[in-house]
Amino acid sequence: MEELKIFAPATVANLSCGFDVLGCCLDSVGDEMLIRKNDLNEVRITKITGQDLPLNADENVAGVAVKALLKELDSNEGFDIEINKKIKPGSGIGSSAASSAGAVFAVNKLLGEPFQKKDLISFAMQGELLASGNAHADNVAPALLGGFNLVRSYCPLEVLSLPVPSDLRVVVLHPLIEIKTKDSRSIIKQNVSLKSAINQWGNLGAFVSALYTEDYELLGRSLQDEIVEPVRSILIPYFRELDELVTENGALGFGISGSGPSVYALCRGDENAEKVKKSIQAFYSKKDIDFELHLSAINEKGVKIL
Amino acid sequence: MEELKIFAPATVANLSCGFDVLGCCLDSVGDEMLIRKNDLNEVRITKITGQDLPLNADENVAGVAVKALLKELDSNEGFDIEINKKIKPGSGIGSSAASSAGAVFAVNKLLGEPFQKKDLISFAMQGELLASGNAHADNVAPALLGGFNLVRSYCPLEVLSLPVPSDLRVVVLHPLIEIKTKDSRSIIKQNVSLKSAINQWGNLGAFVSALYTEDYELLGRSLQDEIVEPVRSILIPYFRELDELVTENGALGFGISGSGPSVYALCRGDENAEKVKKSIQAFYSKKDIDFELHLSAINEKGVKIL
Repeated sequence: MEELKIFAPATVANLSCGFDVLGCCLDSVGDEMLIRKNDLNEVRITKITGQDLPLNADENVAGVAVKALLKELDSNEGFDIEINKKIKPGSGIGSSAASSAGAVFAVNKLLGEPFQKKDLISFAMQGELLASGNAHADNVAPALLGGFNLVRSYCPLEVLSLPVPSDLRVVVLHPLIEIKTKDSRSIIKQNVSLKSAINQWGNLGAFVSALYTEDYELLGRSLQDEIVEPVRSILIPYFRELDELVTENGALGFGISGSGPSVYALCRGDENAEKVKKSIQAFYSKKDIDFELHLSAINEKGVKIL
Repeated sequence: MEELKIFAPATVANLSCGFDVLGCCLDSVGDEMLIRKNDLNEVRITKITGQDLPLNADENVAGVAVKALLKELDSNEGFDIEINKKIKPGSGIGSSAASSAGAVFAVNKLLGEPFQKKDLISFAMQGELLASGNAHADNVAPALLGGFNLVRSYCPLEVLSLPVPSDLRVVVLHPLIEIKTKDSRSIIKQNVSLKSAINQWGNLGAFVSALYTEDYELLGRSLQDEIVEPVRSILIPYFRELDELVTENGALGFGISGSGPSVYALCRGDENAEKVKKSIQAFYSKKDIDFELHLSAINEKGVKIL
């Protein structure tokens, strides 16, 4: 096998109650990547379409992630990476994670799978470090593993796969304003009240329980965030109105996707998800902001070979 | 039915990663209570053996909890409450919760069960408010419901029952020094670092997952607490040495029970629990502190009728 074409999925991290530890993988939104061995002992980003991103491998998240993998193997294999970027950078649905995760997934395959999928997370995190100044795993883990993932511990890294209730759908609104993850992180307070933290871990525990019991209503009630959302939501146009709107239309819960500006609504079933999507479409079309709107099931596989 | 004799179980709250939201119910440690209707339209604490506690119903957690229940019903029924107190107050294994939970459980039964068990939690919490100045639910909920319980939300109150891996055993050491919950709460900082909070909710989520998957090793790894334990453990003699000791002897995890001074070790199976118990016995016998030592399965029923 000399080359591989893959689908590198978008992801929704944090999911309100799980800042920096929780994420899930989307099915219908993602990049396409072509990764090919070369004879140059060099990692090259040979082509990027769809977005204007660095071709220098040391400045590109995919390049950095692949180099971290090769370094661990002490390998001087070379690879050419082509990225057809469909997820906009700064969208809050794991644009950098898709490139990092997709690249290390493909390179690992082309090398005969020296690593298990879970082992690839730490390499992909190097891409996140480049993109946001923080090596978080809550996008790259679901991009690689699929489904819902929980980061139990960062040091040592331990990521759990959680069950996926089959009727779950995600509607994502991406208002086309850019918020850099770096900036969005910088406004978060580094100290939180114990009371808020207690509420947060109560909700996260309940969210995990609801995934196992397929309790959709409980899932919805658990999507609370009094730590990050109150600060970050200020940057997102019409956040409160959207929250009310999707709640009125029967969504289970609503919150910020990753560091925003994308927002997500969890819904039960296609019918409700369509209804919620249409309500957002109608509301946001009247505003003076361009936007993209996605409806997706949960992708239980993560990166896929095309 | 005019009177009821019950077993009111001890409980382990917090369980390291779940401060104020997580607790479990013990099987072999608890009070006995006798509750009897009287014709006096009055709630009376008629007898307390085993400990020196207030007989004035307004100063006794059982009295206060029962009065809260009767007030909600707008009832002027009278009850006599006898408590054979086997759980020492200030032990950290839910002494006040056992009395509060036991009393409201029995009175509810004697009144023909106007409330479901879950509805009794908020009445029993009034006893906790009296005892510690804080109406926490992480002892009264498991005392009433049995098993593992998670408080998703305090306002409105929502308590979840979580599954119980059948081989789980709890070893509890109670060094006979008294730490009042009130004092033990007062030393906790009201602000925590976001980083520690993230670690805490990652671990709590993993703990919940491990209960569903019966992953004993993961349960053990999740029993981390970098928020409360570093402060409270200072008050507990030989805390670090005990942690090392039980870990060496194969315990899954170790931490402070409730507000201490009791500490708990989670173990897999009777054999390991016995080994851990013996190791603590041998170690603490050489110290100049009286102590009690318990080994218990998880009580899945909560308060029991005798």
